[in-house]
Amino acid sequence: MIAAMDVAGNPSSVHAEGRAAKALVERARGEIAAAFGADGADVIFTSGATEAAALAMAGRNLAGAGVEHDAVRAWIGEELPVDAQGRVAVSDPSHSVVQMANSETGILQSLPEGLAVTDATQAFGKLPVAFNWSGAQMALISAHKLGGPKGIGALVVRRGTELDAQIRGGGQEMGRRSGTENVIGIAGFGAAARAAARDLADGVWSRVEELRNILEKALAADAHQTIFVGKDGPRLPNTACFATPGWKGETQVMQMDLAGFAISAGSACSSGKVRASAVLTAMGYDEATAAGAIRVSLGPETTETDVLRFAEAWLDKQKKHRARAA
Amino acid sequence: MIAAMDVAGNPSSVHAEGRAAKALVERARGEIAAAFGADGADVIFTSGATEAAALAMAGRNLAGAGVEHDAVRAWIGEELPVDAQGRVAVSDPSHSVVQMANSETGILQSLPEGLAVTDATQAFGKLPVAFNWSGAQMALISAHKLGGPKGIGALVVRRGTELDAQIRGGGQEMGRRSGTENVIGIAGFGAAARAAARDLADGVWSRVEELRNILEKALAADAHQTIFVGKDGPRLPNTACFATPGWKGETQVMQMDLAGFAISAGSACSSGKVRASAVLTAMGYDEATAAGAIRVSLGPETTETDVLRFAEAWLDKQKKHRARAA
Repeated sequence: MIAAMDVAGNPSSVHAEGRAAKALVERARGEIAAAFGADGADVIFTSGATEAAALAMAGRNLAGAGVEHDAVRAWIGEELPVDAQGRVAVSDPSHSVVQMANSETGILQSLPEGLAVTDATQAFGKLPVAFNWSGAQMALISAHKLGGPKGIGALVVRRGTELDAQIRGGGQEMGRRSGTENVIGIAGFGAAARAAARDLADGVWSRVEELRNILEKALAADAHQTIFVGKDGPRLPNTACFATPGWKGETQVMQMDLAGFAISAGSACSSGKVRASAVLTAMGYDEATAAGAIRVSLGPETTETDVLRFAEAWLDKQKKHRARAA
Repeated sequence: MIAAMDVAGNPSSVHAEGRAAKALVERARGEIAAAFGADGADVIFTSGATEAAALAMAGRNLAGAGVEHDAVRAWIGEELPVDAQGRVAVSDPSHSVVQMANSETGILQSLPEGLAVTDATQAFGKLPVAFNWSGAQMALISAHKLGGPKGIGALVVRRGTELDAQIRGGGQEMGRRSGTENVIGIAGFGAAARAAARDLADGVWSRVEELRNILEKALAADAHQTIFVGKDGPRLPNTACFATPGWKGETQVMQMDLAGFAISAGSACSSGKVRASAVLTAMGYDEATAAGAIRVSLGPETTETDVLRFAEAWLDKQKKHRARAA
């Protein structure tokens, strides 16, 4: 990204500076397609997965479930049912959207063949996923979920898919998304995708998964009434979601922040709002449980010491909460 | 921007890392409002002026002229007339869009009171403009036109203006534009706005204007049949647009590129397309003249030597063109 800051040209300009910017954008596009198993598909750069969702879904009234992200739910018509394990039941794949992995619980879905749209935001980079084998027509991806910068993402579409541009003008991105490209962000996205593919191959996320399991074991040993959501099915290697009925997630976020830990109640983008997790509610959990849920995300740099320090701090807070509530 | 790269938080998260990112975004928002004379207005961050145009104009069928940028023209209903000096005649301001300055000629418009939308992309940073005094309800701005990064811009709206979000989900930007913020880009936009205000106050653009005039004088002394567009009216300090009938703008761009100069025929985003300038056509120039137009943009770092070297090289190319055409 720092190198890209010195590339002054506009990728649409034909002079040498423009061509240098264009080359940088196209190299990143290739890196992302390779990491996402999407060779031969079109990678359309957007300002993030939220814009990609609007581009893929606006006006199409696709069916989707209550566990989808708000950016996807904004465009959903018919509601799809979700079972207690968080699995979405799809009746008409070509008119449905299904996430690969959930942003709060990490629970993975198996995608039906011929699916219209999949939200791959959480899965891309943390699991070996290949768009070309996913059975989906389009996929949403985001750079900041795999260590890249915020504000850049893409809609990946099978070649030949018809798509109405929502942002129109100069005709960039093959006429599907106009506007001068976020060259620095795109460079960062490409580098992050390349690094994510290397990390996956190196087993980085298997080590993260072991730490996540150590965390959950340490918590479960002393926690009272705490439910570990999605623990028994396939899920992301780095996500732990656990709910303590009666102890508000918002409160836990603030208490853990004071202790030096950044965690989340619900998705970050809705974390300003104090409300029960819509994801857990959709899975059939009652309000008190859903409102007591937090999500802890581990990264490649998380250590066993971090995890045990977290468990100690959280268990201490829970003990105090129980003393107050008693 | 480099400092912002170390801010890992999501501005919507309530923990310390999230609050640090939020503070950075809000500081930039304040810097941009101050530089744009828009205190008390809402600055809604978008991925650029093209997205801001879609947000301000989609579905509204505003009237606009042929001299507007393609990103604005994508949403125009009724066509507004343009005179030979490039001035747009507005009949119903509250249902019209008018640019502050043209992207190809630099020609300035006087905005009518009560204008629905103004495209301030080219003017912001190069002229002392104040949104609060512009008479417009909304304005489009872009960071990369004032030295900031590509892929970040804003829609500036008077407080209380109703607006339908096009990118929906997490509810960021007061519900008007969802999606995790481009924190690094926003930081760069804020810094660029601050620097632009300082440059303006320091008279940087007056010096650029002198150089632009030296360039045009040097060219005019030896050019044959070349028309300097907008020369006699108010225009941007850094833009020179000149047309040589019969000598294609595209050809000039390529020849000057080989000589080490990055210039443009038409707007950069449409420069891949070989066609006559729509802006000049709208002003009533014939096809041969419009197709022979180029735009030269000067910057604060352009020197008199640069300008004279350019004039020498261009005049040499023109001479050769005339010899071939003869």
